Amino acid sequence: MRKEVDVLGEMMLPDEAYYGIQTQRAVENFAVSGRTAADVPHYIWSVAAIKQAAAKANSQIGALDKTVADAIVQATQEVMDKQFDDQFPIDVFQGGGGTSTNMNANEVIANRANEILTGSKGYEVVHPNTHVNMGQSTNDVIPAAMKMTCRLNLHALIAEVAALETMLEQKTQAFEHVVKLARTCLQDAVPITLGQQFSGYLHQVRRLHQALIAANHQTLDLPLGATAVGTGLSTHEGYLEQVYLELQAITNEPFIAEDNFFDGLQNGDAYLEVAAQLKKLATFLSKMATDFRIQGSGPRAGFNELLIPAVQPGSSIMPGKINPVMPELINQIAYQVIGNDVSITMAVEGGELDLNVWEPVIIKALFESCTLLTNAIPLFVEKCLKDLLPNEAVCREYAEKSTALATVVATLFGYKVGSRVAVRAFNENRTVREVVLDEQLLTPEQADYLLDPMVMTDPKASAAAVKRYQQEMQVTETEGATV
Amino acid sequence: MRKEVDVLGEMMLPDEAYYGIQTQRAVENFAVSGRTAADVPHYIWSVAAIKQAAAKANSQIGALDKTVADAIVQATQEVMDKQFDDQFPIDVFQGGGGTSTNMNANEVIANRANEILTGSKGYEVVHPNTHVNMGQSTNDVIPAAMKMTCRLNLHALIAEVAALETMLEQKTQAFEHVVKLARTCLQDAVPITLGQQFSGYLHQVRRLHQALIAANHQTLDLPLGATAVGTGLSTHEGYLEQVYLELQAITNEPFIAEDNFFDGLQNGDAYLEVAAQLKKLATFLSKMATDFRIQGSGPRAGFNELLIPAVQPGSSIMPGKINPVMPELINQIAYQVIGNDVSITMAVEGGELDLNVWEPVIIKALFESCTLLTNAIPLFVEKCLKDLLPNEAVCREYAEKSTALATVVATLFGYKVGSRVAVRAFNENRTVREVVLDEQLLTPEQADYLLDPMVMTDPKASAAAVKRYQQEMQVTETEGATV
Amino acid sequence: MRKEVDVLGEMMLPDEAYYGIQTQRAVENFAVSGRTAADVPHYIWSVAAIKQAAAKANSQIGALDKTVADAIVQATQEVMDKQFDDQFPIDVFQGGGGTSTNMNANEVIANRANEILTGSKGYEVVHPNTHVNMGQSTNDVIPAAMKMTCRLNLHALIAEVAALETMLEQKTQAFEHVVKLARTCLQDAVPITLGQQFSGYLHQVRRLHQALIAANHQTLDLPLGATAVGTGLSTHEGYLEQVYLELQAITNEPFIAEDNFFDGLQNGDAYLEVAAQLKKLATFLSKMATDFRIQGSGPRAGFNELLIPAVQPGSSIMPGKINPVMPELINQIAYQVIGNDVSITMAVEGGELDLNVWEPVIIKALFESCTLLTNAIPLFVEKCLKDLLPNEAVCREYAEKSTALATVVATLFGYKVGSRVAVRAFNENRTVREVVLDEQLLTPEQADYLLDPMVMTDPKASAAAVKRYQQEMQVTETEGATV
Amino acid sequence: MRKEVDVLGEMMLPDEAYYGIQTQRAVENFAVSGRTAADVPHYIWSVAAIKQAAAKANSQIGALDKTVADAIVQATQEVMDKQFDDQFPIDVFQGGGGTSTNMNANEVIANRANEILTGSKGYEVVHPNTHVNMGQSTNDVIPAAMKMTCRLNLHALIAEVAALETMLEQKTQAFEHVVKLARTCLQDAVPITLGQQFSGYLHQVRRLHQALIAANHQTLDLPLGATAVGTGLSTHEGYLEQVYLELQAITNEPFIAEDNFFDGLQNGDAYLEVAAQLKKLATFLSKMATDFRIQGSGPRAGFNELLIPAVQPGSSIMPGKINPVMPELINQIAYQVIGNDVSITMAVEGGELDLNVWEPVIIKALFESCTLLTNAIPLFVEKCLKDLLPNEAVCREYAEKSTALATVVATLFGYKVGSRVAVRAFNENRTVREVVLDEQLLTPEQADYLLDPMVMTDPKASAAAVKRYQQEMQVTETEGATV
Repeated sequence: MRKEVDVLGEMMLPDEAYYGIQTQRAVENFAVSGRTAADVPHYIWSVAAIKQAAAKANSQIGALDKTVADAIVQATQEVMDKQFDDQFPIDVFQGGGGTSTNMNANEVIANRANEILTGSKGYEVVHPNTHVNMGQSTNDVIPAAMKMTCRLNLHALIAEVAALETMLEQKTQAFEHVVKLARTCLQDAVPITLGQQFSGYLHQVRRLHQALIAANHQTLDLPLGATAVGTGLSTHEGYLEQVYLELQAITNEPFIAEDNFFDGLQNGDAYLEVAAQLKKLATFLSKMATDFRIQGSGPRAGFNELLIPAVQPGSSIMPGKINPVMPELINQIAYQVIGNDVSITMAVEGGELDLNVWEPVIIKALFESCTLLTNAIPLFVEKCLKDLLPNEAVCREYAEKSTALATVVATLFGYKVGSRVAVRAFNENRTVREVVLDEQLLTPEQADYLLDPMVMTDPKASAAAVKRYQQEMQVTETEGATV
Repeated sequence: MRKEVDVLGEMMLPDEAYYGIQTQRAVENFAVSGRTAADVPHYIWSVAAIKQAAAKANSQIGALDKTVADAIVQATQEVMDKQFDDQFPIDVFQGGGGTSTNMNANEVIANRANEILTGSKGYEVVHPNTHVNMGQSTNDVIPAAMKMTCRLNLHALIAEVAALETMLEQKTQAFEHVVKLARTCLQDAVPITLGQQFSGYLHQVRRLHQALIAANHQTLDLPLGATAVGTGLSTHEGYLEQVYLELQAITNEPFIAEDNFFDGLQNGDAYLEVAAQLKKLATFLSKMATDFRIQGSGPRAGFNELLIPAVQPGSSIMPGKINPVMPELINQIAYQVIGNDVSITMAVEGGELDLNVWEPVIIKALFESCTLLTNAIPLFVEKCLKDLLPNEAVCREYAEKSTALATVVATLFGYKVGSRVAVRAFNENRTVREVVLDEQLLTPEQADYLLDPMVMTDPKASAAAVKRYQQEMQVTETEGATV
Repeated sequence: MRKEVDVLGEMMLPDEAYYGIQTQRAVENFAVSGRTAADVPHYIWSVAAIKQAAAKANSQIGALDKTVADAIVQATQEVMDKQFDDQFPIDVFQGGGGTSTNMNANEVIANRANEILTGSKGYEVVHPNTHVNMGQSTNDVIPAAMKMTCRLNLHALIAEVAALETMLEQKTQAFEHVVKLARTCLQDAVPITLGQQFSGYLHQVRRLHQALIAANHQTLDLPLGATAVGTGLSTHEGYLEQVYLELQAITNEPFIAEDNFFDGLQNGDAYLEVAAQLKKLATFLSKMATDFRIQGSGPRAGFNELLIPAVQPGSSIMPGKINPVMPELINQIAYQVIGNDVSITMAVEGGELDLNVWEPVIIKALFESCTLLTNAIPLFVEKCLKDLLPNEAVCREYAEKSTALATVVATLFGYKVGSRVAVRAFNENRTVREVVLDEQLLTPEQADYLLDPMVMTDPKASAAAVKRYQQEMQVTETEGATV
Repeated sequence: MRKEVDVLGEMMLPDEAYYGIQTQRAVENFAVSGRTAADVPHYIWSVAAIKQAAAKANSQIGALDKTVADAIVQATQEVMDKQFDDQFPIDVFQGGGGTSTNMNANEVIANRANEILTGSKGYEVVHPNTHVNMGQSTNDVIPAAMKMTCRLNLHALIAEVAALETMLEQKTQAFEHVVKLARTCLQDAVPITLGQQFSGYLHQVRRLHQALIAANHQTLDLPLGATAVGTGLSTHEGYLEQVYLELQAITNEPFIAEDNFFDGLQNGDAYLEVAAQLKKLATFLSKMATDFRIQGSGPRAGFNELLIPAVQPGSSIMPGKINPVMPELINQIAYQVIGNDVSITMAVEGGELDLNVWEPVIIKALFESCTLLTNAIPLFVEKCLKDLLPNEAVCREYAEKSTALATVVATLFGYKVGSRVAVRAFNENRTVREVVLDEQLLTPEQADYLLDPMVMTDPKASAAAVKRYQQEMQVTETEGATV
């Protein structure tokens, strides 16, 4: 065991531990969730990258001895290479706005840098605060690391959304000849193609994709250099410019300083923005998943118009039952993402004065949401969307027997006539075509081109059909309407 | 009383009513909130503007008799001029995704147009569905009107946010010479100016302002022309192009058709986007309001560093008490806006198949949020922000007596020395300056320029002070750090 | 115009106004929502009832002159009788935790009491603070009035829930002979009766009903008597006991003093409790409404097993379409109630120190939720539930043709055999009965009693059928399972 | 590797795996969160306990061979003893409403039972569905296990709440002689004791404690025996009665069958109820934590009236800074719990027809909330509440110098005089006592007993003081009021 001291006293630490006394205190203070900062993808990497950039910058401007800086650079690189993930044992929830995680990094890096330089742990040559944290404060390091983490996580998510978009393009094309009935208010409406339905999904995903990219621009400007409260107190001359050059080189991302550091420390709107886009994405995915579940309901006592790929047996008691488990997974994730947005909102709203210290709950909730979506989308694409098929015969039958085809009758003869035809068709359990012929409103030939469901899915085709009819009949619309 | 008939039967209506049977049914079906569609700013105006554009377009392309169209145009203009607001009595909550409000408009316009043409109400010459609703469906009219309503409401809100921004610019400048103590975790931190604090607000509001403008671009593309399910069924040739020309002329806004109507009817992400921006705005306003309340706490047993203008007596029992009622109003509104975002999210998530029919709750919640913010911001600017003043003497005293000034000591002599000085100052109830002189770490002259709170608020000035000290002492940072 | 003066200066008021200067200031400060305190059912009544009880109590214990007290009693009674509703023009949102509404009541009552005693308005004889507010503070009056308001609103809601329960009892009984298919994961499951489905609703509503009654017990203990901060400062000896006797007599409700007034002023958990029960109710109603919409989907391209009463035409363009508008109304209301719960949560969470001053947003959100539910439930009962009917033929057909009947085969012959039968039935588009007979697993007679859907809905009947089969076959379950 | 087969095909599994093919499929389908069902405290234990009870019951009633039953009992006991925790690798999020976890248990138990009986894994003697799942369905097993899990988790939480209550009792007593100033709207109000403030917390926690106990009663009635859809299909005669006897014996908890199984499968209101109580608890804890943070703000530029125990250094840059990290932890957890309540609400609201299949997200969110609270409360009690101390000198000074003491002047001389005194005291920076003496309203002796802050905290003492004064002066209240 080795001893460390801080302002509150001393503590014994395991010899093999690279973390120090403040880490140990924090581990004991915050053991609530079983999830550590190291469980958040890219987070510790981002903190270490900042430490490395600061060491290089401070060395470059002459504020930090080069030997010390080099040892810090090596130590941070090892952290970034995930060699010390087990040295970040503090809970992701933690009081103090991230001080504990920042000090955890400072301690691990200092102990390791001392070890590099002296052969043993300790802070004699490299001190966690004086050297590793030089020119920095928890209050700029942690928000900067959060934005970097956010950026790297969004890159991964955006790639999955792009793949979803590609798959929806394929499906939109593949389904364009499948005519079916649309429903509004879950009631039979007029015909549509399945391709048209999917084109709606496709355009939505395109917009969401662009929105995520746009939101990710908000992760580029960092408060690094603000130190404790935005004034940059205790940074050395030239540090601010240099540290961003170093950080860009290390991360290969165009991170820059925020216009106004006070804003940067006070406000968490960037996280709200990202959370809002994640929520929009989750909300849409959930809506699409519900569509699939409704359209795939059955097989004999439901809609039965969509065939959802079977990926596992669906019941421990009902043999042969298959459930739409992949769409259901999407719904569940959406519920969690929507709840997390409320948590993030409260964390941002609860900011007080010169620093928002609710960052830990933002980290937990935002990156949980991000991870859930990033993991779930490819599963959904691969195991549900890719092999999704229409039940074409059922689709066409629905389209042909709908009383909503009377909409065309209303277009030609006014709403009242359309209404009468629809009611007769429903009451007599007949098709609109049958009633229209029975009432001699149309000839069989006219019914063929006017009541063809596929024609109705194309406004130009249906307008042309109406025009052809009007030319045949030489009636004006207005006259027709008064029938 | 006059009689009207629909597919479900007949009903008697007051002679003076311009609305018809479907409106009356809806009034009875949905009487839940006491708020009508007419209570939503710009909403009925938008519906009527669409009806006018459609009548003009249908007339232009020859689908609608010019006499009928002219009467519809006159009737819609009267609705837009608010002459028939009392004829829209249906609750803002309503089943059916807005069919009732659309039919309400169709009926009022048809009855009024008939009256114009024939001297009496009725649908003989102008029919609600056949003529007023020609080429339209509830499913494209209502979402289009919602987006238009959204746009007009956001215009009003954005103007108020711009005025807030201007006021914050003034305050930032006016407060730039007021030095005070920053707090993080509500604990004394290092000095800052009040102007710096407000510059954080200013930059946040600038970003929110731009975000609202960006969100408002999403209200320009409308599903008008989609009719029932996105296929445009029952529109006449040329209608789609013409109706947008007419609508642009009527509204003087560059409304255009959505790229994909199926997407337009299926998805409500535009409302989620607007709701998210409203929530971001509300969340920030609430944070700023809380800051003011904390900084204005006292007058004798609190922070007492900010003087919030008195706008009304604060207690029925404690004479002389004044409360920060304007900031409190802002907090309250934020809570409602945040709750409404959840309602809107559920409405968007709950969309099914080819149409989101939860529009009424979106209308209610989104425009309530928008109205609350639009009304509250100018009150807050005028009655709180404009005359807000610092308690300068208190601010300076806080800055000077803080133990956090030991941060500079840590910068010069390492974290351990800084820590020792801070602890002594606290325990002995002295200033950092007193302890530093007592320990002979600095000369009085050095303390003057190194521990001046105003210097500490400027990173260049404080870096220069440190440099000056180092040149005086000819010590390197690293040596200093090992003391 | 008449003049009034307060600590901030003087103001002119209309001669006819009974409210005074503080009300007028508040009207101008808080004009944000267009909803006033008088729009909240029972709220102003409750405030006035408290004022009356206090006047009577103060008179009784000798602290208040009887003439003054009598005038206050008369004035408060007139307020309770709704003669002064237009004299409460302040927005329901208001800074200051209700001070404005309390002073509004004090001013109206004082002016009216002066008028009663002297013939003209003014505060010479009866002063708003000294007399009308005697022994009170906003901080005890408003929370007490909120709980009273809550109680009275819940009474109304509970009566509607009881009526819903009665209707569900009738439906459960009426539908007990309708056999249909259950679905889990929206996939065909095993048979159930429609009565069984409704018995689930019935038992849920019974539990919700009891939960609302239990929650309403939490509205009985009031903080009245706490005055400003819970210490009861400025109340006269004997007041506390007397004021509750008077309040009980006036309201006919067993209101009592809270055990601990500090708790009473600090915490809003009673509102969270009520909001939680409203949310549970709304959530269930929404679930049931969605069931009806799914089961009523069609009529030709959906489930079509439930016939939802038509209450209005469903489309402006598709003649004959009828939408489930009443269930949809319920879904919409649920979304708002759920959002309001978040608003209320934030208001309760945001309480600080000795008083929760976010009461106005609680009032707005909680009573909006309560009113929506109280109004919507009877509409739903009357216009949807009462005349709801099953499509019995469709229900039976679904039950009979389901492949899930293979569950019985699995019970008899093990899961593997059941699975094989189910898959064959599905692939060959046959019934389970057909496959079972084809495989000679059962005789036709055995199939009759084992595969009867109605038998399967009754565990005793189906266990008896299995037993009868086993006795016939003299096989043990375990042997069967190894087939 | 060993091979398993299901209706979708075959798969290879590691020889050492006790789980089977359906588990493996589910692992691949649902890998989204990194949290498994085994991470949820008591959950797998509860599932296994149900399996054991079912095996014993089925054996008892003769439906299951005793040898098989005994092996299942042994295998389930081993699972309950946590010997197979690593055999439950499926994500806590999962489509299908828990089928995967139920089958995971069935497979592990069957393989282990076969191993016990035959020496090797496999399903020849004990089949996962036919034997382990006999008389059960995912649809009754998982909701029953959830309620059991809920009960066991609540037991742990309730114990921590009880300990919190005990600590608050001690603090209430310890602080009863500390007089301080109360604040409403964060503005100076009238005196209170710190004990009175804490008595408010104490009474709130008592109520929350009882509410949790009451909510936990709702976890006693289980849907076990409902099987697939509530009808109990495929259970054997006598099973239902026997399985509860066995379950009670195994768990030592009085679990009983729900009154109505259809209700039990359809509705998740019990989880909403528990979530609501967790939210109430979290909301209160967060409010109390915020109080501590405000009262502990400073040490020199804040309230500085409460001394929060230091548990770790508070800054990486500002030496000597100590943050209220334990209260902050509580705020953060509250935000997550509140967000989770929204997720759970959506999951319950989203239930469809005969089964709520959103259980996995309920499990994730509800038990995360429960665990966070159960872990955080004892940390908060031990590391914050236990050693919390008042800054008594500051507290008393605040109480004595407040202008709000003018409330007593208003009680004696009417609101107008009180107001004048308060304004003078504030403007002239004097105490109320000084102004009152200056104005000769009171004699020094009268001021002594009337303006003593401690007297003002006791309504009886202050009423007695007023009475003594009135007797001395022989003035009536009404006369006084007109001064």
